[in-house]
Amino acid sequence: MREIQQYIKEKAERLEERLTVYMEESEEVPLRLREAMAYSLLAGGKRLRPVLVLAVCESLGGNEEKALPFGCAVEMIHTYSLIHDDLPAMDDDDYRRGRLTNHKVYGDAMAILAGDALLTKAFGIFAEASLQAGLEEKTALSLIREGSRRTGGEGMVGGQVKDILGESRSVNLEQLRDIHRSKTGDLIVYSVRLGAWVAGASPVEMDALTRYAERLGLAFQIQDDVLNVIGDREKMGKPVGSDEEKNKATYPALLGLEESRDWVRRLVEEAKDLVRSEPGIDSTRLMGIADYLTNRDQ
Amino acid sequence: MREIQQYIKEKAERLEERLTVYMEESEEVPLRLREAMAYSLLAGGKRLRPVLVLAVCESLGGNEEKALPFGCAVEMIHTYSLIHDDLPAMDDDDYRRGRLTNHKVYGDAMAILAGDALLTKAFGIFAEASLQAGLEEKTALSLIREGSRRTGGEGMVGGQVKDILGESRSVNLEQLRDIHRSKTGDLIVYSVRLGAWVAGASPVEMDALTRYAERLGLAFQIQDDVLNVIGDREKMGKPVGSDEEKNKATYPALLGLEESRDWVRRLVEEAKDLVRSEPGIDSTRLMGIADYLTNRDQ
Repeated sequence: MREIQQYIKEKAERLEERLTVYMEESEEVPLRLREAMAYSLLAGGKRLRPVLVLAVCESLGGNEEKALPFGCAVEMIHTYSLIHDDLPAMDDDDYRRGRLTNHKVYGDAMAILAGDALLTKAFGIFAEASLQAGLEEKTALSLIREGSRRTGGEGMVGGQVKDILGESRSVNLEQLRDIHRSKTGDLIVYSVRLGAWVAGASPVEMDALTRYAERLGLAFQIQDDVLNVIGDREKMGKPVGSDEEKNKATYPALLGLEESRDWVRRLVEEAKDLVRSEPGIDSTRLMGIADYLTNRDQ
Repeated sequence: MREIQQYIKEKAERLEERLTVYMEESEEVPLRLREAMAYSLLAGGKRLRPVLVLAVCESLGGNEEKALPFGCAVEMIHTYSLIHDDLPAMDDDDYRRGRLTNHKVYGDAMAILAGDALLTKAFGIFAEASLQAGLEEKTALSLIREGSRRTGGEGMVGGQVKDILGESRSVNLEQLRDIHRSKTGDLIVYSVRLGAWVAGASPVEMDALTRYAERLGLAFQIQDDVLNVIGDREKMGKPVGSDEEKNKATYPALLGLEESRDWVRRLVEEAKDLVRSEPGIDSTRLMGIADYLTNRDQ
């Protein structure tokens, strides 16, 4: 457990460095906008998604340096979605990771535009990094197309819409899963697939890793709900029980706390089995990350 | 003049059809989100940017069918920028093209997400259309990278930021040009370059067309400011004189009305000369479009 924490920490630091370079390089971006982008992008956090990009690439013997820009782009997409989700028009959150949210510091207009700019930048990096990594044309363009699908109206953005619409009516377990499959699952799956693409995974490996990621994504979301019930304010950096206040459907509310935790454990075991049984995948880190996610307390 | 109007109308209809197909095809997008996206995307308008994609492609003897998806993607980016610009947190406009703005109909949250989804979709189409059009790998990826730069923090989004920051202080002519170069110019230039890429323009042709587009973009913006002063409410679909009310810097305010109109005429002549002098470009339509933009009254 300590070893994987150390691994994640090291990868997160590498990502942080590269993300800082991306922000510093953007000299043609107006300073105020660049500050707003960097404020949220460089605010720390688990960096789960880009760490997955790197870890999956490594697990297949791929070149980490080639995977790094893809990880950064994924983190930009994740960050833009958080900035927009926190807006008064959406979740209206004042704090994120223990600091004021973007719009509380820079105002709503700048927060919207910082999100737009991060999203747009991400697709530019996908293209540039594909050129640099020498990916095959079809691979590179398919990867960008899938990125659009998994993060847009069919994926992450669509999930946020379903989540908002779900607040005003009662949602059952199947609907809740569907919301999270797109809202948080798609980007996690995409991160894993990016790492696999860069490393040149075989179709069988790609399939196993995709299913690993699907389980990881769901486990991560259930665990988030569980922590929202039992966590404490300091550790989460946002008021605990806020889901309940908003009358949001959660796994603990639908299944109970113990059943939810059991499900997380089962999903993690399935995820680990999937990567362990593929001979071409060095599954050590990927299993460690899955375990880490169930044992985390924030 | 009537001929070019007819030409633009026909192309706009083709685009409208294809845009409608894109919206209808998006079955995995939640219905409410799809409605919000389609509301603004299919709201008519001049379709100047995608018409330029098609006209430039045609002027080089390229295949219009291949250019069509690129035109649609550009229109999605333009539409997303309008939806976000109209938000209460930004320009707070209630009407656009004579109809209620997106957030007035669907609410602020859905308007933000509809914009996000349109932007994300556009990059997916760039990738897919590049695959379908059989563009060279380097061309396709460079095109996507340039799209990110011209529409993100270095381009269109950055221009909107400069515009917002400019409202609170006095802006001189050079600064105003700089704002518009990125806020509206970059997407117009990109549209022209997309059409040229698809048709396989030579570097010299690409250069001439880029400079044509730069002049067109600036002329278009100055003309917009002029029309804002002299137009009438019905024709513009928004209250005339609204720039003045917001104390926004405009070309007529800085240069006077006559000087502004003269500048538009000079820019259009320059633009026409640039395409007329390239033997590989059939400049008829491109000159017609340039003339049309100066003579338009809306």
